[in-house]
Amino acid sequence: MPNIDRSFLQIQSLGECLIQSPLEESEVRFVSDEEAVLLEREYTKLVEMQKTNGQIPVFEVAGPRRMLFHNPHWSKAAILTAGGLCPGLNNVIKSLTLALKSYGVPLVYGIPYGYAGLNPNCQTKPITLDRETVDDIHEQGGTILGSSRGAQDPVVMLETLVRMDINMLFCVGGDGTLRSAHAIAEEAAKRKLNISVIGIPKTIDNDISYMDRTFGFETAVYATNSVIVAAHNEAKGAYNGIGLIHVMGRDSGFIAAYAALANTHVNYCLVPEEKFNLEEGPNALLPHLMDRLARRKHAVIIVAEGAGQDLMAGEREIDKSGNVLHKNIGMFLKQKIKEYADAHHVEVNIKYFDPTYQIRGIPAIGADAVLCHLLAQNAVHAAMAGRTDMVIAQWGDGFTHVPIPVAVKERKKIDPNGTLWRSIRLGTWQ
Amino acid sequence: MPNIDRSFLQIQSLGECLIQSPLEESEVRFVSDEEAVLLEREYTKLVEMQKTNGQIPVFEVAGPRRMLFHNPHWSKAAILTAGGLCPGLNNVIKSLTLALKSYGVPLVYGIPYGYAGLNPNCQTKPITLDRETVDDIHEQGGTILGSSRGAQDPVVMLETLVRMDINMLFCVGGDGTLRSAHAIAEEAAKRKLNISVIGIPKTIDNDISYMDRTFGFETAVYATNSVIVAAHNEAKGAYNGIGLIHVMGRDSGFIAAYAALANTHVNYCLVPEEKFNLEEGPNALLPHLMDRLARRKHAVIIVAEGAGQDLMAGEREIDKSGNVLHKNIGMFLKQKIKEYADAHHVEVNIKYFDPTYQIRGIPAIGADAVLCHLLAQNAVHAAMAGRTDMVIAQWGDGFTHVPIPVAVKERKKIDPNGTLWRSIRLGTWQ
Amino acid sequence: MPNIDRSFLQIQSLGECLIQSPLEESEVRFVSDEEAVLLEREYTKLVEMQKTNGQIPVFEVAGPRRMLFHNPHWSKAAILTAGGLCPGLNNVIKSLTLALKSYGVPLVYGIPYGYAGLNPNCQTKPITLDRETVDDIHEQGGTILGSSRGAQDPVVMLETLVRMDINMLFCVGGDGTLRSAHAIAEEAAKRKLNISVIGIPKTIDNDISYMDRTFGFETAVYATNSVIVAAHNEAKGAYNGIGLIHVMGRDSGFIAAYAALANTHVNYCLVPEEKFNLEEGPNALLPHLMDRLARRKHAVIIVAEGAGQDLMAGEREIDKSGNVLHKNIGMFLKQKIKEYADAHHVEVNIKYFDPTYQIRGIPAIGADAVLCHLLAQNAVHAAMAGRTDMVIAQWGDGFTHVPIPVAVKERKKIDPNGTLWRSIRLGTWQ
Amino acid sequence: MPNIDRSFLQIQSLGECLIQSPLEESEVRFVSDEEAVLLEREYTKLVEMQKTNGQIPVFEVAGPRRMLFHNPHWSKAAILTAGGLCPGLNNVIKSLTLALKSYGVPLVYGIPYGYAGLNPNCQTKPITLDRETVDDIHEQGGTILGSSRGAQDPVVMLETLVRMDINMLFCVGGDGTLRSAHAIAEEAAKRKLNISVIGIPKTIDNDISYMDRTFGFETAVYATNSVIVAAHNEAKGAYNGIGLIHVMGRDSGFIAAYAALANTHVNYCLVPEEKFNLEEGPNALLPHLMDRLARRKHAVIIVAEGAGQDLMAGEREIDKSGNVLHKNIGMFLKQKIKEYADAHHVEVNIKYFDPTYQIRGIPAIGADAVLCHLLAQNAVHAAMAGRTDMVIAQWGDGFTHVPIPVAVKERKKIDPNGTLWRSIRLGTWQ
Repeated sequence: MPNIDRSFLQIQSLGECLIQSPLEESEVRFVSDEEAVLLEREYTKLVEMQKTNGQIPVFEVAGPRRMLFHNPHWSKAAILTAGGLCPGLNNVIKSLTLALKSYGVPLVYGIPYGYAGLNPNCQTKPITLDRETVDDIHEQGGTILGSSRGAQDPVVMLETLVRMDINMLFCVGGDGTLRSAHAIAEEAAKRKLNISVIGIPKTIDNDISYMDRTFGFETAVYATNSVIVAAHNEAKGAYNGIGLIHVMGRDSGFIAAYAALANTHVNYCLVPEEKFNLEEGPNALLPHLMDRLARRKHAVIIVAEGAGQDLMAGEREIDKSGNVLHKNIGMFLKQKIKEYADAHHVEVNIKYFDPTYQIRGIPAIGADAVLCHLLAQNAVHAAMAGRTDMVIAQWGDGFTHVPIPVAVKERKKIDPNGTLWRSIRLGTWQ
Repeated sequence: MPNIDRSFLQIQSLGECLIQSPLEESEVRFVSDEEAVLLEREYTKLVEMQKTNGQIPVFEVAGPRRMLFHNPHWSKAAILTAGGLCPGLNNVIKSLTLALKSYGVPLVYGIPYGYAGLNPNCQTKPITLDRETVDDIHEQGGTILGSSRGAQDPVVMLETLVRMDINMLFCVGGDGTLRSAHAIAEEAAKRKLNISVIGIPKTIDNDISYMDRTFGFETAVYATNSVIVAAHNEAKGAYNGIGLIHVMGRDSGFIAAYAALANTHVNYCLVPEEKFNLEEGPNALLPHLMDRLARRKHAVIIVAEGAGQDLMAGEREIDKSGNVLHKNIGMFLKQKIKEYADAHHVEVNIKYFDPTYQIRGIPAIGADAVLCHLLAQNAVHAAMAGRTDMVIAQWGDGFTHVPIPVAVKERKKIDPNGTLWRSIRLGTWQ
Repeated sequence: MPNIDRSFLQIQSLGECLIQSPLEESEVRFVSDEEAVLLEREYTKLVEMQKTNGQIPVFEVAGPRRMLFHNPHWSKAAILTAGGLCPGLNNVIKSLTLALKSYGVPLVYGIPYGYAGLNPNCQTKPITLDRETVDDIHEQGGTILGSSRGAQDPVVMLETLVRMDINMLFCVGGDGTLRSAHAIAEEAAKRKLNISVIGIPKTIDNDISYMDRTFGFETAVYATNSVIVAAHNEAKGAYNGIGLIHVMGRDSGFIAAYAALANTHVNYCLVPEEKFNLEEGPNALLPHLMDRLARRKHAVIIVAEGAGQDLMAGEREIDKSGNVLHKNIGMFLKQKIKEYADAHHVEVNIKYFDPTYQIRGIPAIGADAVLCHLLAQNAVHAAMAGRTDMVIAQWGDGFTHVPIPVAVKERKKIDPNGTLWRSIRLGTWQ
Repeated sequence: MPNIDRSFLQIQSLGECLIQSPLEESEVRFVSDEEAVLLEREYTKLVEMQKTNGQIPVFEVAGPRRMLFHNPHWSKAAILTAGGLCPGLNNVIKSLTLALKSYGVPLVYGIPYGYAGLNPNCQTKPITLDRETVDDIHEQGGTILGSSRGAQDPVVMLETLVRMDINMLFCVGGDGTLRSAHAIAEEAAKRKLNISVIGIPKTIDNDISYMDRTFGFETAVYATNSVIVAAHNEAKGAYNGIGLIHVMGRDSGFIAAYAALANTHVNYCLVPEEKFNLEEGPNALLPHLMDRLARRKHAVIIVAEGAGQDLMAGEREIDKSGNVLHKNIGMFLKQKIKEYADAHHVEVNIKYFDPTYQIRGIPAIGADAVLCHLLAQNAVHAAMAGRTDMVIAQWGDGFTHVPIPVAVKERKKIDPNGTLWRSIRLGTWQ
């Protein structure tokens, strides 16, 4: 076997693990630090990697360790949720709490309104989480802790943690949230504070690198289906009816793409990863659409919020978390289709759908609920073993540790030449 | 007992019923033309009516007659759906078809795209409906026939009916649709043509007079609930979060009102029937909202599309069906709340929901599906008995006949001094 | 107008109302004691009633009174839920609590596990209900108070109320529950105690007399639909497939009947109100079923739990609440169909469904949620005005008061010769 | 890199591929026969494999080939579904049809009622499938083709294929179905007939080896959730309430296990893979349950149909497909709990749920719908390239080919010492 390379995915540790875990062999499968899982599973790519680097990259495997860094009985944990809503937040909060209680951690705080809750100026107060508090929350959408966007000063936040004597911080959120978690972890390292900062990656768009799937994504695909059904009904219910659906997907079009694969009534799937033209050129949407209407009298279009940004003139804006705010491609398309149809004397009936907030706010369904539970359990195992500045990631049929800076370096995107996108091409317009 | 007054609600008949019904006593309860049901059930109002008019108004009772006007075996029926989508359209189409087949009508046409399908210029062709064609359609939203807005020339349409030898036309639609049905019925009467024109009233807003409930309404209230849940989750998920939901209800706010009663998380319910002020006056929304945010940190607002029209400057537009097109009060409110909050240095997080098309396009749920089935059966009974220029209406625990001109004279509205609205006031802001 | 007869539906009052209501004219429409609503709306039946009795029966109208019997500020209320689960219980609990709080009642107790909670031997303790406690409960199925079956000694229960100083008791439950409420009210009257005992009728079967609809019923019809869809899929998915669905309906088959009207894929609807034979006679199920299979290769049957009891030999059992326990007609039918098919050398594939507990345990949907809210508000209004030994009933488009003994005297049933059942006959086998 | 071993997972091919694919580079990513994907991703296991065998096993990668064996324009395909219903069958049928049409296959037959439809004695006739026929079917549960259990003579079936001139057969089904497909493929090979027999593995239990996930499984986990919610509500709604849920899982408890992870209200999860005792021993269920009731007053139990078979005396039965028919462990447990509680003078209220058929009959949700689509596309690609006697399998983030005999050799099971089961132990009783 080739040599393996751990350096690239090396996880920070607070120190040696000297405390015996209170969990029992019969309850958990203890993981050894020697275990590793390949980044890549395709043989030809592996061969290539080895040729190039002499070795192949592996992940540290997530799971409970026999020896712990933190003494659970002397520990205090804090949980916060930041960024936009995502199905499964409450599942994560519940399962983090239950897992911490399984270890015997006496105090678990819920920090209100994300990082704002760690800034004393915001004058919020933490909630104490226990088995009773969290009992039913996994059946509700949203987050019982509230959330907020935007960064806070890591120094200020760290000082709050120190003041509250917190030695484990769990940050549930997306890119921005994880970057702030990294800043806190770095500041703590600088001061040699033994605080484990563990991220649970949250992106309904499924666009964080080095992980197969993030929680909330499958629920989003699931929930988009009823919108596609309604859009198809509206499209067929009117002469030259067009159902136009605008879904989440700022940089990556996974929701749009999977929703289109899941319901083959979608005729056009527009994502940020593949440019298209409106009126002219080989890839022009509008002439093709008119042609389809002439033949079939109806069409269903799904468009990710980040698609076609180049078509819209003007400046981009940035939100508090540093995300690029896109112009609304959905409304833009609606107008352009109308104009083009009018210009060609075609009557069209466009019905516009934007289910964004209805999808974000529902409870996680089956597969996502399981994912939340296992991410949370593994996050607690990682914290207990003194890991820090890392996220838990689902990879293949297991879970791994990924350094935060690696996870947030670049977004995962649909490969326009890959299997997924080609499967869509085979079935839709593209 | 006082004398009863049938004149006001008198139904047009094509002539004497001389054909024995093929239905059997064991299958149906035959209705006698003498049966009548009171318009009013409250004793004091009845007393008043009698004092004023000397008699009290009653409806003709819907149901199968022992003797028919049309001979089923020589009949040809046509069904069309017009106006916007509404849950239950396919149920009505299926149940009309099945009931016509029960009578033995050999040919049932589905007319595509509403009244446009009766205009030869539109070059559509009718579908033949039978048990096989309609077998599964009640489980789908939308309408298998398609729909369209806008009137067509009644003379042209009548000529199509004559050319196709159709003696029963079932028009499923709202005000505009029913007015066109009336125009066809009048034109047919003028020419002494024995064509029964029967309306099945369709208004998701539940705003047609002289009927308790129209199909699709309960499904709309049901479907609005998940939006309220999501809006509440979004509102609680952010600091000073506001979930703002824009629902159907052009002239009458029944959907908003019932949805607010059904989910007591709604704090503000805004309907066309009750004016409100934004910033000043005893009924001012924005100061009250800021006050609530200060206390509770979140709020849920539901607003019917026809509410607060006086607050928005500028001209009204009219759509093809003659409906007044309202400016979007939802978007307007969103902007006004933001401006007011900014002006008062309050941070707010507004999430906007417009589930209109998602609600219209779903299949009818339980109670509505039953209603569709019974409306359709009774519409066929009425047509068979030679009734025309009328709609079927649900009234109390039964069904009645209502002349089209009476049904469309004015819209049913929430009485701001009535029990329904006061129940909302007791629970919400108003 | 004829004379009206209040005697039959006369409500018990604790005494004169001398306290001014704290509710305001702008929030509620005050109801006068003179208002009345006709029991009957059909003109011919009214004429007949008057001929027979010289007068026609009316209900007392529900709603807020301007003058109260109980002083809200000195009041203590208790709420209990008894009998089987039903969608909407938590809605009723929430809305009772909110309405009591609107009046200013300082203490509202939730009694755990139904009447058992009023028996000191059961050693439960009451929960204090307030706006916070009940905030989210309407979005959950079940009852936060728990429930139990079976009666307790009214003397013991009354003594608990007296000991706790409770002057308003709200009992949410079916026949058995209401009879116990009546027993408490009678015992209180005997001792001249000013305790208002108000029932909120709960029967998912919709079988309590003198009310159009009880909460939970529409949710049950709604929820049965997905089972019918699955049963139809199973039936069509196998050669000579039969989907056999067993639903609630001990004495009355309303759920089965409405579910069959709501989804016209049902071919056989069996209810307690109409006898049927298995093998022989004009109404024999099995030969007809075999005939249908030969023609259509599949069938869907819905059977209410109380149907066909005469076909099953042996004794009846009685449960703790005094309900007759029926043998399981669903399992019996399954076996009989199999035997008959085998005997006639017909291969059949029977799939059996019993969704009872899945339906009972879900949250109330739209129309039921509204009903719960309005029943609860009106129950509080009635209690405040010193009414007792009564239930709130939905009647026409409003709410009325009905004496408990009248409501529970006999069950509401489907009239086999009425319109509802004949509508089913027209579409199914019967 | 170590040598790879293809022998173990070698796929049968009908012959050399000489026909140019009609698909275009822009629509699909063509796969080379050299591509391979590792069976194993864990580094330590790989090292061990290499030590033992000198090489490591890899799969053939699924996907479109540039060169085809069958000429699409001269091809005739047939699709059949066999065994029990499973969410996604219609999606597979639709996507197979669409993919075959993309290649230009002129005739696609749907074979009714599984393998029975290939036996002339059963006197069914095939349906012609095209874009119109399959347009809406993915939104319905069940299978439009119907299904059946039990094997047919492979010689008879092959002769039907030959008579109909079919050169591609797609068999959607479980173990039994795949074994029959293998028998047909073997018989065809014996006669040197160029027929591609491709299996699409269907097991709602997710228990076929060499594949991560089979379609329908996630929908089953999703659909089980509402049953758990109802069971929890029933359990909390009664004193010492027990919600007992019986789910699918004849040999493998994946549905029970994932459902328990997805909804942490489950307290006991019983699967075939782990034995348990009832009354005595360290692992005894009933004493633990009584103890929990004493503390928490309610419990939720989920039990897979194949669990605890050793506890039930008597003989096993075998169904037509050769599956071992299990005694109903759910009903057995219900009785044993009751008896044990009675013997210990504990009042319990057990509510029993068996949602099996309600879950099987629903449409596939998001992730499963995508899986069905991609399995079907890849199945068509495999058939076109002349592969036979194989199934398409989801593996990691891609799709592979697996020889039928390998796939059906033994069932995939939960490893009681693995991570999944230990995660459940950490949260539930076990």
